[in-house]
Amino acid sequence: MKPSIPKGTRDFSPEEMIRRNYIFEVIRNVYQRYGFLEIETPAMENLSTLEGKYGEEGDKLLYRVLNSGPVMDSLRSVADPKVSDLTEKGLRYDLTVPFARYVVMHQHELNFPFKRYQIQPVWRADRPQKGRYREFYQCDADVIGSDSLLNEVELIRVIQDVFSTLKLGVSIKLNNRKILSGIAEILGASNQIIDITVAIDKLDKIGIDKVNDELLAKGLSESAVHRLQPIIKMSGSNGTKLELLDQLLAESEIGRKGLQEMRLVLSVLEQLGGSWGSLEVDVTLARGLNYYTGTIIEVKVSDSRSNFTSSVCGGGRYDDLTGIFGLTGMSGVGISFGADRIYDVLEEVKGFPDLSNAATRILFVNFGHDEAVHCLGLITKLRNDGINAELYPDAAKMKKQIAYADAKKIPYIALVGTDEIKTGQIAVKDLATGEQSKLTMDELLHVLR
Amino acid sequence: MKPSIPKGTRDFSPEEMIRRNYIFEVIRNVYQRYGFLEIETPAMENLSTLEGKYGEEGDKLLYRVLNSGPVMDSLRSVADPKVSDLTEKGLRYDLTVPFARYVVMHQHELNFPFKRYQIQPVWRADRPQKGRYREFYQCDADVIGSDSLLNEVELIRVIQDVFSTLKLGVSIKLNNRKILSGIAEILGASNQIIDITVAIDKLDKIGIDKVNDELLAKGLSESAVHRLQPIIKMSGSNGTKLELLDQLLAESEIGRKGLQEMRLVLSVLEQLGGSWGSLEVDVTLARGLNYYTGTIIEVKVSDSRSNFTSSVCGGGRYDDLTGIFGLTGMSGVGISFGADRIYDVLEEVKGFPDLSNAATRILFVNFGHDEAVHCLGLITKLRNDGINAELYPDAAKMKKQIAYADAKKIPYIALVGTDEIKTGQIAVKDLATGEQSKLTMDELLHVLR
Repeated sequence: MKPSIPKGTRDFSPEEMIRRNYIFEVIRNVYQRYGFLEIETPAMENLSTLEGKYGEEGDKLLYRVLNSGPVMDSLRSVADPKVSDLTEKGLRYDLTVPFARYVVMHQHELNFPFKRYQIQPVWRADRPQKGRYREFYQCDADVIGSDSLLNEVELIRVIQDVFSTLKLGVSIKLNNRKILSGIAEILGASNQIIDITVAIDKLDKIGIDKVNDELLAKGLSESAVHRLQPIIKMSGSNGTKLELLDQLLAESEIGRKGLQEMRLVLSVLEQLGGSWGSLEVDVTLARGLNYYTGTIIEVKVSDSRSNFTSSVCGGGRYDDLTGIFGLTGMSGVGISFGADRIYDVLEEVKGFPDLSNAATRILFVNFGHDEAVHCLGLITKLRNDGINAELYPDAAKMKKQIAYADAKKIPYIALVGTDEIKTGQIAVKDLATGEQSKLTMDELLHVLR
Repeated sequence: MKPSIPKGTRDFSPEEMIRRNYIFEVIRNVYQRYGFLEIETPAMENLSTLEGKYGEEGDKLLYRVLNSGPVMDSLRSVADPKVSDLTEKGLRYDLTVPFARYVVMHQHELNFPFKRYQIQPVWRADRPQKGRYREFYQCDADVIGSDSLLNEVELIRVIQDVFSTLKLGVSIKLNNRKILSGIAEILGASNQIIDITVAIDKLDKIGIDKVNDELLAKGLSESAVHRLQPIIKMSGSNGTKLELLDQLLAESEIGRKGLQEMRLVLSVLEQLGGSWGSLEVDVTLARGLNYYTGTIIEVKVSDSRSNFTSSVCGGGRYDDLTGIFGLTGMSGVGISFGADRIYDVLEEVKGFPDLSNAATRILFVNFGHDEAVHCLGLITKLRNDGINAELYPDAAKMKKQIAYADAKKIPYIALVGTDEIKTGQIAVKDLATGEQSKLTMDELLHVLR
């Protein structure tokens, strides 16, 4: 009868919350500085909104909420009950589909191009494993209603600003769906673009030989696989890669268009300068290909202190996001930060700054009722100055009160007994150094600020 | 095939989010200043954690989440399926039970007295109506593991600080379960305390005659109802009320204990002075009596600008919160702010401050690619200074770009064409006044700061 929580979910302790909030605040502040505005959508969406949007696999991972009321009774009255008789709502699986639903529902109130950000949990009935949870936060920003590639530029700057604020080295990989289409085209395998990209996306994991095996197994010709090799193996600077692609894709109109888009994004970013994180053209990047139609972005940690290699942010452009809900011709581009993974990396590299200001700065020891009431008056002054301060609520043994301060990592304790009440001073002890001094309120404010 | 959201749930627009975040930030900051630390618990809890904790009515209002996997197949193989075959998880109904579960699960890591706050949504399958939603936020703070009445004092100060920051007049009503027990005792109806308090709690709504009718119907004697009258009708200052209660409860030990607790809390608050919101002894207040064992707190709006009368905050002490999960002897005291109701009141009284800093401060008009890239460089400087700034992503007609700024309530636009690029100046227009001036970057920073 020991209480527990569902598999794949987590409690967050005060220490974890302070660190998580730090990450969210960094992302939120950057989003706001770029003119993105926050929205929130409900945790539960109608199943008609969610189903069929994430593929067959995704549908299986949706959490469905039982209809309220006498469910079993109504079930028994049905000859052959289906899941749809039980449930019509589900927990959101990501923030993109609810956002598309939001845009369509509120299209007449919105100001386009609409730049929104959203930081909320999502739920997936996935098999829990290290680093993969059934409830986790997504931090999305999207611009909808503008074709301009400057939106891509801005979003990549957002990524650079976030990781530069977090002081975390990253590599920002760029691709373009149109380049992938061009490659498929020149290989004479336009309708196998998905097979091709799914295979070459695995390069990092399974190596080139197995990628080639897979391509052949999928029915690509020997000659096409042969011609794909220089593309897969492409290395060098972005300039070198783009030149090679210029030659390879000269005959493909869509391929040339993709290259032109990529060049524009890179050239503006270069002109702006002063960026954080290396920008890397990577034609093997095929993330979320099912709906991206232009730029594709993926961010990996690239920091000498970290062994982490998985993605911490990703995004891209999708030309018809709201089409699924009947509003066509709305181009969108967006990114999503994986706060949980960023947390794990910052833990690994000890990258969190000193966040002790979010916790209590000083504990007033409780010597008894009268002293305690006097202390509450002093504490009020500190709080009015924005300082987090507290009184130990019980007149417990000194040792216990100091242990409380230690465990809560409170840096100072104040000792105010009858003497201090008379003189108007406050005895303050720095728990790190053990140093003790008698201060006036003004002096104490100065120390704590 | 128009998209919609489940009944009783809401989308929050950017404007609403800015206002909601303002309320959350006020509450969060005050909680932190008092030494409360944040935790979060998962949206889904095991049904064994939730069921049986909110009474029969509450159980009906729990949202149950369908087990993942092939639910219907397993159902069909069961002769007489029950809801429990379908579901073992539910959405949290409040923050108190998950907190109790958290304390029991993490008791060996926690530092007692443990002061936690928690701001998260909860879900109830209630009939939706004006001001009542199926998904809404609670903002709780609790201290667990300390009997000291100074915790009550601190929590009432928290309430005062929150509403004084929000500049909203409130009346803080105080009662004590022990006073109610004393009243039942001197009426010779100790085991009818629930009937008595449920009836007199309705005084505001149904009037004294109907309260008396209900008391008689519940089996209270004529004489007991007669003796209850001066208590129900009690008026005047807190001092006057406490004196009357002293006389009435002289023979009841538990009643005297309740009065002593109430006096201590009031006297410390009085000594501290400078409080916001009137403190009012109200023995008809019986909120959440099922689990409160000492102080009971309820806060109502009492502001000349508002017609709102319902509760915006409440709380109290419960001597054995974690007992339901097997950890006994842990006294807790807590409060909970109703952010949605506070929002409605602040809307009504036009009490939100100017929150325009959270949105974009200046829009750079897009005159074409080269000018736009130049503007992005200028915008970077503003952003590095913490100013929210954006570029219109497309070289659209001026009218359209200004309409965008207007709709987004952006106060300034910047016009940087070839002339301005040459001179290094920025033409800035104040959209409220129509005033236009040419500024250097330093001057612009000065205006926007």
